[in-house]
Amino acid sequence: MDYRFSDKVLALKPNAIREILKSASDPGVISLSAGNPAPDAFPIEAIREISERILRENPIGVLQYGVSEGYNPLRDTLKEYLKKKHGIGGDDEELIIVSGAQQVMDIAAKTFLNEGDVLICEAPSFVGALNTFRSYNAELVGVTVEPDGMNMEELEKVLDENPRAKMIYTIPNFQNPSGVTMSLEKRKKLYELAKAHGVMIIEDNPYGDLRYYGEDVPAIKTFDTEGIVIYSGSFSKVVSPGIRAGFMMAPKAAMAKMIICKQGQDVHTTMWSQMICNEFMTKYDYEGHLDYLRKLYTVKADLCMELLDKYVVPHGIKYNKIQGGLFIWCDLPEGADMLDFCKKLTERKVCVVPGNAFLTDSSLPCNSFRINFSTPTDEQLTKGIIEIGKLAKEIIK
Amino acid sequence: MDYRFSDKVLALKPNAIREILKSASDPGVISLSAGNPAPDAFPIEAIREISERILRENPIGVLQYGVSEGYNPLRDTLKEYLKKKHGIGGDDEELIIVSGAQQVMDIAAKTFLNEGDVLICEAPSFVGALNTFRSYNAELVGVTVEPDGMNMEELEKVLDENPRAKMIYTIPNFQNPSGVTMSLEKRKKLYELAKAHGVMIIEDNPYGDLRYYGEDVPAIKTFDTEGIVIYSGSFSKVVSPGIRAGFMMAPKAAMAKMIICKQGQDVHTTMWSQMICNEFMTKYDYEGHLDYLRKLYTVKADLCMELLDKYVVPHGIKYNKIQGGLFIWCDLPEGADMLDFCKKLTERKVCVVPGNAFLTDSSLPCNSFRINFSTPTDEQLTKGIIEIGKLAKEIIK
Repeated sequence: MDYRFSDKVLALKPNAIREILKSASDPGVISLSAGNPAPDAFPIEAIREISERILRENPIGVLQYGVSEGYNPLRDTLKEYLKKKHGIGGDDEELIIVSGAQQVMDIAAKTFLNEGDVLICEAPSFVGALNTFRSYNAELVGVTVEPDGMNMEELEKVLDENPRAKMIYTIPNFQNPSGVTMSLEKRKKLYELAKAHGVMIIEDNPYGDLRYYGEDVPAIKTFDTEGIVIYSGSFSKVVSPGIRAGFMMAPKAAMAKMIICKQGQDVHTTMWSQMICNEFMTKYDYEGHLDYLRKLYTVKADLCMELLDKYVVPHGIKYNKIQGGLFIWCDLPEGADMLDFCKKLTERKVCVVPGNAFLTDSSLPCNSFRINFSTPTDEQLTKGIIEIGKLAKEIIK
Repeated sequence: MDYRFSDKVLALKPNAIREILKSASDPGVISLSAGNPAPDAFPIEAIREISERILRENPIGVLQYGVSEGYNPLRDTLKEYLKKKHGIGGDDEELIIVSGAQQVMDIAAKTFLNEGDVLICEAPSFVGALNTFRSYNAELVGVTVEPDGMNMEELEKVLDENPRAKMIYTIPNFQNPSGVTMSLEKRKKLYELAKAHGVMIIEDNPYGDLRYYGEDVPAIKTFDTEGIVIYSGSFSKVVSPGIRAGFMMAPKAAMAKMIICKQGQDVHTTMWSQMICNEFMTKYDYEGHLDYLRKLYTVKADLCMELLDKYVVPHGIKYNKIQGGLFIWCDLPEGADMLDFCKKLTERKVCVVPGNAFLTDSSLPCNSFRINFSTPTDEQLTKGIIEIGKLAKEIIK
């Protein structure tokens, strides 16, 4: 059969990182290429208790159909939490539960993008989101990420030049893959530019609670007087990714369409996952758990940066210090062959992600690679970074 | 903000049944409008045991990211089960786990349908699937359902007249909403017509294990020498809908694109749900559970049909006996005002679903309504059907 695929999916290719992760799953390989939470990060004991309790006290609630908008107690808990902690939310806003933040990208793209419409993103950006936007045949236009976030002159130019621009996708906190946090000034500027151009913003904030240094910067959603920001949150990095639970907040008029899309995709999010999150947020020390995670990852982030400073930076590779999140972005010196560098690293059984995987077009020039410090053990991290340093010493002039 | 929605979602409206279900959620109302499993249908004790065990023995497996294709042990279990029980599967086929069968409809539509492409479905058909197809701006063309399945002359005509026809969507067993089971001859004819026209088939089989009378009819997928059938199965009606787990089998070349779409929607299906299903299928008496469900629902189906024969049929409403599934389709006599009938029933606190909700265009003429017998108690079912009979007696000439 010669399949007549839709135009949307014709050019789709498997996620490049997944292919890398396949070779990284060899037990002899040190993987700095994943984005998984540390095995120590899961509140296993609490989840065991909650699961036992909800299946004893309310099994039908766990097992029967739920509503597409999500488990109402969790929706209420999150609305209150976002309001109190982040100053997000209001009478014109609606919050629904989704099956992981990935679903926010899919639903938002479907609701707002016609094929050929332009989505503006950071360059580099999260490849999982980019692939979703690609699957709706959106045209992706990247804007350079600087140490304080997107280059705003470039963003303005891109908006001016692309009348079909419909959305801006941004990860303002500890961006994946660059590790960059957008400054307050740039967040305000981005909002003003989007408003002036009648463009929606997807504010993706999966790592916001994982800040190790410095002060929180207000979410773009806190400026959203016009109702143009879709705010996306996730339980993947703070409770568990395997449960597939996240949430989105958007103006009611936009959410009405998005709920229909959500319903068409999976009817509703797994009830067990939603109930686990609600019980954990309301009956356990959720803030204490976040503190624990921050401590756990601060140690790992510190170790990673110390190792980089000691073994890698002296041989010509640069990186920016991070304030949070799970990733560090390393730049090879100009003229170095990044793909060859990553390939040689893999031959030495250390996996990182070549930076071009995070670009709107992976054939664009890129001299960077991404490393993750949350998944490897301290020993693996140490060995891996020493190996990066050795290779840099050998081949970088 | 004047939202510039995509063309796909501009005309989308909330699922009409959901609106009805909202009024049906009033505790004083007898709802014959749902499609939920009976509360007695859930294997609660087994799920409690399994959940406790997997969270004790393999908590990281439950909580960490999984792969998009699904939990491999469950994929293997299902491949073996489908092969052995239904003669489905082969070397060119791939099976993946999805977040309920609803996701199959979304992924298949996205992978094969451009906006304006034609999807052919039964008239009436499952509104949840139709809404998903609508959300990709497909043109829906309905083919009349007869007591042995789609009218094949009409299907051939529709295929001939619609060069943009890309897919046929069918529920061959105990169809929702008509209750009809497609004959073997028609299944073969449908396959031959699809093959001759180069059109894909989505075979949606959520109720296949719930046969109360007669012999199983082979799945269309068993004829699929050409690789044109996407087979969709679900745990919603046989284990639990709240866990959101289903599966799809399709030729590898088509599945490659569909896996990317699945990944873009929710990365993977909740690990807990997948592990529950695998443990339940492999370590418990799964066939015994299916027998139990069939007995449970046979009693309810029998009661429902007896009540209809006694209280409703004498007043001019007809229905076709069902062989399985959860729904019975009732036809008012010609000239009766179906919408008015359903409205009056609601005023008397009995909810059914007006049949036009299941048509490709709900403004098309329709004289039928759907009743469900799995969700109400026997007492509710009896009261509800007696009330339908009373109303029929009063207003049908």
